[in-house]
Amino acid sequence: MRMKVEKLPNEVSREPFPGSKKIYVAGVLHNIKVPMREIALSKTTDRFRNEVEENQPVVVYDTSGPFTDPSIDIDVRKGIPRIRQGWIADRQDTDQLDSISSSYGKERLFNPDLQYLRFEYSQQPRRAKAGKNVSQMHYARQGLITPEMEFIAIRENQHLEALYQKDNALWKQHAGHNFGAYGHKVFITPEFVREEIARGRAVLPSNINHPETEPMIIGRNFLVKINANIGNSAVTSSIEEEVEKMVWATRWGADTVMDLSTGKNIHETREWIIRNSPVPIGTVPIYQALEKVNGKAEELTWEIFKDTLIEQAEQGVDYFTIHAGVRLPYVPLTANRVTGIVSRGGSIMAKWCLAHHQESFLYTHFDEICEIMKAYDVAFSLGDGLRPGSIADANDAAQFAELETLGELTQTAWQHDVQVMIEGPGHVPMHLIKENMDKQLKECGEAPFYTLGPLTTDIAPGYDHITSAIGAAMIGWFGTAMLCYVTPKEHLGLPNKKDVKDGVITYKIAAHAADLAKGHPGAQHRDNAMSKARFEFRWEDQFNLALDPETAREYHDETLPAEGAKTAHFCSMCGPNFCSMKITQDVRDFAKKNYS
Amino acid sequence: MRMKVEKLPNEVSREPFPGSKKIYVAGVLHNIKVPMREIALSKTTDRFRNEVEENQPVVVYDTSGPFTDPSIDIDVRKGIPRIRQGWIADRQDTDQLDSISSSYGKERLFNPDLQYLRFEYSQQPRRAKAGKNVSQMHYARQGLITPEMEFIAIRENQHLEALYQKDNALWKQHAGHNFGAYGHKVFITPEFVREEIARGRAVLPSNINHPETEPMIIGRNFLVKINANIGNSAVTSSIEEEVEKMVWATRWGADTVMDLSTGKNIHETREWIIRNSPVPIGTVPIYQALEKVNGKAEELTWEIFKDTLIEQAEQGVDYFTIHAGVRLPYVPLTANRVTGIVSRGGSIMAKWCLAHHQESFLYTHFDEICEIMKAYDVAFSLGDGLRPGSIADANDAAQFAELETLGELTQTAWQHDVQVMIEGPGHVPMHLIKENMDKQLKECGEAPFYTLGPLTTDIAPGYDHITSAIGAAMIGWFGTAMLCYVTPKEHLGLPNKKDVKDGVITYKIAAHAADLAKGHPGAQHRDNAMSKARFEFRWEDQFNLALDPETAREYHDETLPAEGAKTAHFCSMCGPNFCSMKITQDVRDFAKKNYS
Repeated sequence: MRMKVEKLPNEVSREPFPGSKKIYVAGVLHNIKVPMREIALSKTTDRFRNEVEENQPVVVYDTSGPFTDPSIDIDVRKGIPRIRQGWIADRQDTDQLDSISSSYGKERLFNPDLQYLRFEYSQQPRRAKAGKNVSQMHYARQGLITPEMEFIAIRENQHLEALYQKDNALWKQHAGHNFGAYGHKVFITPEFVREEIARGRAVLPSNINHPETEPMIIGRNFLVKINANIGNSAVTSSIEEEVEKMVWATRWGADTVMDLSTGKNIHETREWIIRNSPVPIGTVPIYQALEKVNGKAEELTWEIFKDTLIEQAEQGVDYFTIHAGVRLPYVPLTANRVTGIVSRGGSIMAKWCLAHHQESFLYTHFDEICEIMKAYDVAFSLGDGLRPGSIADANDAAQFAELETLGELTQTAWQHDVQVMIEGPGHVPMHLIKENMDKQLKECGEAPFYTLGPLTTDIAPGYDHITSAIGAAMIGWFGTAMLCYVTPKEHLGLPNKKDVKDGVITYKIAAHAADLAKGHPGAQHRDNAMSKARFEFRWEDQFNLALDPETAREYHDETLPAEGAKTAHFCSMCGPNFCSMKITQDVRDFAKKNYS
Repeated sequence: MRMKVEKLPNEVSREPFPGSKKIYVAGVLHNIKVPMREIALSKTTDRFRNEVEENQPVVVYDTSGPFTDPSIDIDVRKGIPRIRQGWIADRQDTDQLDSISSSYGKERLFNPDLQYLRFEYSQQPRRAKAGKNVSQMHYARQGLITPEMEFIAIRENQHLEALYQKDNALWKQHAGHNFGAYGHKVFITPEFVREEIARGRAVLPSNINHPETEPMIIGRNFLVKINANIGNSAVTSSIEEEVEKMVWATRWGADTVMDLSTGKNIHETREWIIRNSPVPIGTVPIYQALEKVNGKAEELTWEIFKDTLIEQAEQGVDYFTIHAGVRLPYVPLTANRVTGIVSRGGSIMAKWCLAHHQESFLYTHFDEICEIMKAYDVAFSLGDGLRPGSIADANDAAQFAELETLGELTQTAWQHDVQVMIEGPGHVPMHLIKENMDKQLKECGEAPFYTLGPLTTDIAPGYDHITSAIGAAMIGWFGTAMLCYVTPKEHLGLPNKKDVKDGVITYKIAAHAADLAKGHPGAQHRDNAMSKARFEFRWEDQFNLALDPETAREYHDETLPAEGAKTAHFCSMCGPNFCSMKITQDVRDFAKKNYS
């Protein structure tokens, strides 16, 4: 079946959010501009529609990239602007290669049958010069504040527009401090970003071959991030659908996207996705390696895997899930589980280990993997191949044995100045969640934790975005840095666009609830703006401030569709006589008149 | 507009759940039969479709009443069977009245214009004989184990079918103990139910005029319960819709239903709902009282309110939300809130207090209210009229001042042997949730807590079932006994049937996650059955065990609709080569062959 790639440009979602515009905040240390979304608010009126008060616009973190900026021309066949290209070249520690290094990649490149689905505008990949390490962790440990780091510092301070828009001196003065304060407001400084990356407590995924990314950070002293999984399987889906899913997921708030494709043409699908992605892209290279041996786990070799790592690193993948903690002696620990091994990568490696009765090649070649990672700045996402797949298996010996090994591998990676995050479960009842977080922090030296949910019950297939949002919000509060979303289709089928959106919005809720509970300085201003708009019956502002403006408006209009209802000082739930908000206004007016 | 009540019988949902049948478990102490839902499971097969193992049916708690039993003939114009009628009469402490006592009720009854929407088969109400107290708390404190209490003990032990179906002697022997154990399994005894009610730590809502209820209990040492709100407003909805919403809500798992109608004909709507409801019905009587004074809060009087209480108590309302904690001195504490007073009852009483500059008549007449409650066994649900309506207002002085007053009123009610639960918030960020629970337990002598969510962020209108399920699951774990659902339409409009279902399912998830975290003995058996079915690719069993079998099946079939796919040993997410579950089976088979 031929892919209809020529249809792509018309199919990606580009409409800006209602009442919103893209703004760009300039850097001070570097020549950068950081995109944010500004939501305009209307004036407060009294019940006679007199204007009483202005409401300042609310600026929010924006993951949607250039797609929501109508002034940027985008042709997905060419990819989005390569904003980091100059920053990378300026560091003068990389070479542009004459051709790609992977032998599989070359095969695909020179196969004329694939011409119709190949991305046309790929550039030659870059690689670190011999002896150089191009990881952000390495720079951070050298004391450098890169443009990426300043970009992030600005981005994490969306609550402080007054500061960075108008007071460059203050920003510059704080740049070298690890803490900023402006009046009552605390803010994040570029130096703090650097320190957290140097310490390994935060990860900045930024492959030098993915210059299209808008830098973002994953660490528990920053806003909690979310990841959306996309990808086709042997059974369904095509390239254009996957590109649109990526655009769609970032539109609604995905901070990173993992391409979990397992079907045909995953090399080409990935190229299309990366060239158009403003967020870091993660993959699980063992999936593609397994395709190369026709699905026979026991035929996997280190050489095939290594070639796959290089192939993907040169395309620009920002982080690799690698299940190097699934060691041979741990496999028998899963024998009496209710649900065995539920991680695909974990089960593949378990099968390989048993078949060869050998230690995993991912474990024995770990130093060599680190050498590849630092030549492109790919971050590890150390996979939890033995995570529990059911409430019954939570926090068991297999899971925790693997976690201890992941801690050991973290130390190895850090010796190479390679960035690391740690993947976590899975299915865990609420009372066992904190133990996961505490043990991860302890075993893995505070490397960022990146969990899938966890799901807090097994009995609600069709609603696992919700069963898992409960666990995700909690573990986010406890310190998890990134939450991998779960869609309503989990355990049942592949997500469609609606499922992707439901999953992303649900996880934005969990992440934001965690930010509020952690007291992130940039978290509560949007809640407060929403609550004030709600109390003042500014319906349009409520819609525009919502995580999902379309759905909020649609639900409101279902019962009160008239335009007049959007300025009415009541709504359909209670009607005009019963509105508690209206009565409170009456109470206040009455008290003012009679008791003041 | 005339109500089309004659359409009702065809409109209520009666279809039994797939793969399920209603079973009835007989009592031992009393002549009772307790309905439960038994889900049949298929046999485990290997990949060659050979049968390897039987799977026992799973019995689950069932709130759907007689509607899902095809052997029961139901005519909603006549109401459902009055299963408690004989139990109430046998106690010989009530009289059947010659007519209803409320003057407003009489007006409605004798108004010929209302004939077309009146419920035809109402019986004369019962009331306690002079000097008698008919509350379950009173019986419990006398040492009586009522049929209602034994019913509950059986009902809460759905994980122990072997015990109560086959071992009457064991059940009888444990009846007088406050703790049961059978092998490794712990279970709840009738005596434990009695003790918890006597202590005030649990509430058994069971108005003598609502003999249609299947007894249930609300207390933190039992399964966490959920409430669904229904009710029309002045703007929308009709009687038949509300009756169907009640049937629909209980079908999906609502343990109680609150009728929050504020529109016309709420007396008649309520009668239809109660006569057909297998679960306790709660109301907020001040809503109707306000209708009687045309929405003018300052014109409310104790006499009008009292007549409303009696009117509703004689119809069979099982619990009343009464905002007696909104005292005059607390009103100014809300002046600087972002969202003022968001409880309708709270704002009505605040307005009344300010207008008269007097203490609330609910507070000053509280003893008289208790006298009414005990004559019909209506339970208090002491309303949190000053709950926070935004993250910004959580845990503030107004909220906690009211909570302390609710604690004082709890003691008063208990002196009358009247059952009490306490309503809680609202909007609370995760890190402030536990303080709510701890303070409620301390101030209110461990009376059951009944919370609305709480919502953990304000920025997701359209998804507040999810923002609040996070808070609900957590506070349920911490000890809240009943969770009031929030639908996706919260803050935006009135819920339709889909919203009611989404709200109920979401709250069943939250309640069940809390049961798992608390270690309720009856909680995990369903998760384990689901996980085993999942691991063994028993798709039909997964659907049937799900909280929402229809949606689970529909989502699965979207990608793999063929019947064959429901017995396939893989699914659409990964395809046949990549299934981790399949690989785990391979690993186990391989290990068995090669290493054993």
